[in-house]
Amino acid sequence: MSDILELYPVSLDEDNQALVILDQTRLPNETLLLSLREPAEIREAIAMLRVRGAPAIGIAAAMGLYVASLRIKADSREAFFAELASIKAFLAGARPTAVNLAWALNRMEQAAKAVGGESIPVIRQALHDEALRIQDEDAKVCRAIGEHGLTLIKDGDGILTHCNAGQLATSRYGTALAPIHLGAERGMNFHVFADETRPLLQGARLTACELTAHGIRTTLICDNMASQVMKNGWIQAVFVGADRIAANGDTANKIGTSGVAVLAKYYGIPFYVCAPLSTFDPSLNSGSQIPIEERAPTEITELWYEKRMAPAGIDVYNPAFDVTDHTLITAFVTERGIIRPDFGKRMASLFS
Amino acid sequence: MSDILELYPVSLDEDNQALVILDQTRLPNETLLLSLREPAEIREAIAMLRVRGAPAIGIAAAMGLYVASLRIKADSREAFFAELASIKAFLAGARPTAVNLAWALNRMEQAAKAVGGESIPVIRQALHDEALRIQDEDAKVCRAIGEHGLTLIKDGDGILTHCNAGQLATSRYGTALAPIHLGAERGMNFHVFADETRPLLQGARLTACELTAHGIRTTLICDNMASQVMKNGWIQAVFVGADRIAANGDTANKIGTSGVAVLAKYYGIPFYVCAPLSTFDPSLNSGSQIPIEERAPTEITELWYEKRMAPAGIDVYNPAFDVTDHTLITAFVTERGIIRPDFGKRMASLFS
Repeated sequence: MSDILELYPVSLDEDNQALVILDQTRLPNETLLLSLREPAEIREAIAMLRVRGAPAIGIAAAMGLYVASLRIKADSREAFFAELASIKAFLAGARPTAVNLAWALNRMEQAAKAVGGESIPVIRQALHDEALRIQDEDAKVCRAIGEHGLTLIKDGDGILTHCNAGQLATSRYGTALAPIHLGAERGMNFHVFADETRPLLQGARLTACELTAHGIRTTLICDNMASQVMKNGWIQAVFVGADRIAANGDTANKIGTSGVAVLAKYYGIPFYVCAPLSTFDPSLNSGSQIPIEERAPTEITELWYEKRMAPAGIDVYNPAFDVTDHTLITAFVTERGIIRPDFGKRMASLFS
Repeated sequence: MSDILELYPVSLDEDNQALVILDQTRLPNETLLLSLREPAEIREAIAMLRVRGAPAIGIAAAMGLYVASLRIKADSREAFFAELASIKAFLAGARPTAVNLAWALNRMEQAAKAVGGESIPVIRQALHDEALRIQDEDAKVCRAIGEHGLTLIKDGDGILTHCNAGQLATSRYGTALAPIHLGAERGMNFHVFADETRPLLQGARLTACELTAHGIRTTLICDNMASQVMKNGWIQAVFVGADRIAANGDTANKIGTSGVAVLAKYYGIPFYVCAPLSTFDPSLNSGSQIPIEERAPTEITELWYEKRMAPAGIDVYNPAFDVTDHTLITAFVTERGIIRPDFGKRMASLFS
């Protein structure tokens, strides 16, 4: 798996004509790059989690909108912008929970409108530049999250993480894994416990690959083993990412995150949410307003879509995310620093 | 799957010559009965979870010891008992955590010794009768657990359960599922949420099959969705089984149980452990003395031993059980009634 070190989850091809995605549904068994040009292909890649992780989804949508703009056949700026808005709405509907998707697409639209009086090639160039800027900023933001997060842990700590909020979910370093990657670069040793993260096993397939490829000590556990691992005294901190954070600090993240947070509180372990400011949605007062995506029952009833492991016709509840109550969160780690309670007040001043 | 209604997980064949096991590793895709005669086959069936669930393991070991006794070639009672003790120790080593295994084997040995002065055929008959008695008692005990458990819930309640502590884990009715089966027989409607129970998916493969075959409304969830289901207000009680209960009430059960208990406490939902008195081990002061079985990494890294879902060489922690602290348990439901705190005192009087 060392080749994943060289791969970014999202990029543009050499000719700036296609969106290139590392198909994360094929990991760890296959390293497959997809070149996507059509809006339908790009939306499918996001909806099927070929690219996933809130920041990476944002970057993919941004680059995808630029790539799609190359195929718009319009003889007027008005027609071009109408078509662009239509593609934007189409891509925005790929997944409902991660706010970075809409955030990135809105930035792209604004960048295009800022040069809306220029020729269509100039507008396309602005879309290209903005997409690369979003990606470049994400790398810097993740590194800053890593720096701040590193102040919360010490050499030798055991860290539990859920799902994958690492390099594969961002442009580089990750969010929740950024402190670990950055610490490892500086010779620090952590012992990461990776929840496998049912049903789609992002922890087993992605986090375990990414960390071991970087030589970081990693132990894979099933989600339901987190309680025992904490009870054993092996965990000094929990780091997770986020898909959307409401104004009061309630946080939507991969299903199972709220359970880990309850356990961390019970066992007296700090629980940190690592996320860029682009994941905060100050327009929502609380987590109850965050839309939660429900996905197909077959993700649970058939092991990796191959073998049926539950009776035919069984009713299934398959939310892709849950909302962790802000009272369970010790602090947020952002590119601007660490936010501790009272979250509502501190966030309001951050976004005012 | 309605044929599983007719099947008991453990029985003797018509000629009383073989132990017949419903191979639960094949469910739900195949209904396969195994006829076992050799100690090595019987131990393998227990170790590989072809038969599982603390009470069913006890019954299988008891019937297995009887069946194995038919093949002892001994020309003296002394030689017979020496061989019997050797087989007993061999079977007892199949799995370390469930105390019912040793409990049933000890009962068998005592039954044999009670007629130790008689002929070997008479001793074998005593083993046969004791094994059937253990099975028969288990059915009565489970029904009594069902009666007592039913007083704790009301028609229409949502019940969360973990792993399978149903008919497939006992001789009939189950332990944790006994109140649900009994209530259903009386026309009550419950809505059961079944944790799939990684890594071996006993919830998806067994509980979901068993309950839907009986027409009981069941929703399958991944283990990490329990927090969200509780937060949604869908759960009025949690029922789980047990593999060993220490004198203070600390309870070993399928990995993940302690996490569910922490969640139930956080969300204010009663958490009930349903178990026969044979699962209580008053010789242990607390749960820290209960031996916890660790199983093969491949249970986690390879989906049902077929497809690799984690990087090669990844370190894995795979405890088959965890210990739920007695402070997280609302009450025990036993055949003698409901035991509420102070567990230590009440259990001491029960076993004195």
